[in-house]
Amino acid sequence: MTKTNSVRFLVTGCAGFIGSTLVDRLLLDGHEVVGIDNFSTGQWRFLEGAMKNPAFSLVEADLTNVKADVFKGVEYVFHPAANADVRFGTQHPRRDLEQNTIVTFNVLEAMRSNHISRIAFSSTGSVYGESTLVPTPEDAPFPIQTSLYGASKLAGEGLIAAYCEGFGFQAHIFRFVSILGDRYTHGHVFDFVGQLKRSPNRLVVLGDGSQRKSYLDVEDCVSAMLTAIEQADCKVNIFNLGTNEYCAVNDSIRWICEILGVSPDLDYTGGDRGWIGDNPFIYLDTSRIRSLGWKPKVSIEDGIKRTVQYLLKNPWVFEVRS
Amino acid sequence: MTKTNSVRFLVTGCAGFIGSTLVDRLLLDGHEVVGIDNFSTGQWRFLEGAMKNPAFSLVEADLTNVKADVFKGVEYVFHPAANADVRFGTQHPRRDLEQNTIVTFNVLEAMRSNHISRIAFSSTGSVYGESTLVPTPEDAPFPIQTSLYGASKLAGEGLIAAYCEGFGFQAHIFRFVSILGDRYTHGHVFDFVGQLKRSPNRLVVLGDGSQRKSYLDVEDCVSAMLTAIEQADCKVNIFNLGTNEYCAVNDSIRWICEILGVSPDLDYTGGDRGWIGDNPFIYLDTSRIRSLGWKPKVSIEDGIKRTVQYLLKNPWVFEVRS
Repeated sequence: MTKTNSVRFLVTGCAGFIGSTLVDRLLLDGHEVVGIDNFSTGQWRFLEGAMKNPAFSLVEADLTNVKADVFKGVEYVFHPAANADVRFGTQHPRRDLEQNTIVTFNVLEAMRSNHISRIAFSSTGSVYGESTLVPTPEDAPFPIQTSLYGASKLAGEGLIAAYCEGFGFQAHIFRFVSILGDRYTHGHVFDFVGQLKRSPNRLVVLGDGSQRKSYLDVEDCVSAMLTAIEQADCKVNIFNLGTNEYCAVNDSIRWICEILGVSPDLDYTGGDRGWIGDNPFIYLDTSRIRSLGWKPKVSIEDGIKRTVQYLLKNPWVFEVRS
Repeated sequence: MTKTNSVRFLVTGCAGFIGSTLVDRLLLDGHEVVGIDNFSTGQWRFLEGAMKNPAFSLVEADLTNVKADVFKGVEYVFHPAANADVRFGTQHPRRDLEQNTIVTFNVLEAMRSNHISRIAFSSTGSVYGESTLVPTPEDAPFPIQTSLYGASKLAGEGLIAAYCEGFGFQAHIFRFVSILGDRYTHGHVFDFVGQLKRSPNRLVVLGDGSQRKSYLDVEDCVSAMLTAIEQADCKVNIFNLGTNEYCAVNDSIRWICEILGVSPDLDYTGGDRGWIGDNPFIYLDTSRIRSLGWKPKVSIEDGIKRTVQYLLKNPWVFEVRS
């Protein structure tokens, strides 16, 4: 998939955080890209660059009810589209089922009817639940789900693997830690910056701040995915994506406050996790993807700081997501 | 859940092979039972005994579209209802998603709206795919799915575990080997006996006959489930159910032919598995359920022979299932 070998990709959730970053990279590498988004959380502004490129075409559609002919002529499908809101799963349990599990099935069926057999899927480190093994490798003990989001992604992984066995598909499945960087529009950094912009003297922190988290920069994430699909050629290729480090939520607060130049009172809600299904420590063993020569360029500290800078330069993000 | 402590159970798929056996046992133990079935594969005749018992009430309904008030007043839900046809998954991929994954979600939501929090779920050894660890324990390495059936059951397990974490449910999840015994109406013994009744001189065998399988008698299976829900009290309790032995398909053929008194030519379709997603060797580590004092009473050989006797005594089974 070098520049001399242009491929026609389809990217679901193309106006999302990861989707749009991926679209830009694929276009930069000389590929054609069909993007699908329903713009429920995706942002038109994230596609400003892509829309100027004749190799990009946009389909505004909802994958819960997509016509298969949208996939016509596509050689490879990236499927990052998802309800990515882990935290509020229990408030609307049907959403993860419909937007993650059933939509993944719809994508697989659309591929099958168009004789497309290669898919890359954005899964999550949440599928490990609270693993007994940390750092958690891809073949960790059979996990027990702790969130509807994780369960819906596990179901998506299972469907994809079954299509590989049953219909000759090839899959690359990526289990992410939390992703940060430009165009980041949810999660704790977004939440903290938003809070501190409104009231610089007080910050409400879910949990006790001790939750350790591992983050990966979105550009590093996209590079890792492209490395894997170029090099790993099994039927089902599963990779953890993350950095070899972690931070505590309290570290993150310190870095954010440093950039914003604020010293808020910290109001902890208490407990060792932020919400039901929150994992007090997600830290993935990434030796498998590293063995292919990939490594992250951005540290967690730099990733968080870059994200804050992006959010400060793009205040519109808070308006559309509030 | 002894006779002195009557519980109101709901059993999905109550007219099915496992469901109806469970209903009879629960009634025998003095409990009340509400049974749900859509009679797509369930058999009225399996409920002949139950229907005479005033502690049993039947709801003819389809769980893809069930009204939650059917669950009113229920204390405990057994959910064996499923599309149990592993073999033809690739011919109708939507069926496993709808009848197994989405139906399980519907059951969980109906429970939640009726404040019912205890569920027992019939999963399958197929969720292990082709495990690197045999006999396969419950905490085997993170599995890769090889069938749509396995994927749909894994998705059901994930949903149930997420409801335990998110909504305070308690679950008992059972991963079965193949189940045999009275009322058995699918799978290889059913297929072989049916073939040999039609043409005693020739038997078509999928694969090369070397596939090793582990079977459990349906009465032993029901006893194991009741043992587990009485004794295991974690949030999510997962148990493999099977015997400590296995047989080859060729052994099974020998036992079946012995009872039928036939010596057919064997026509093997070849290969080390019967169909796509068939696992050449499913053999589960059952030490966890055995540690609770349960052990099977029926050997695989006796289980297969009993099943053949049942099928010979109940030729109607072949008529309704042909």
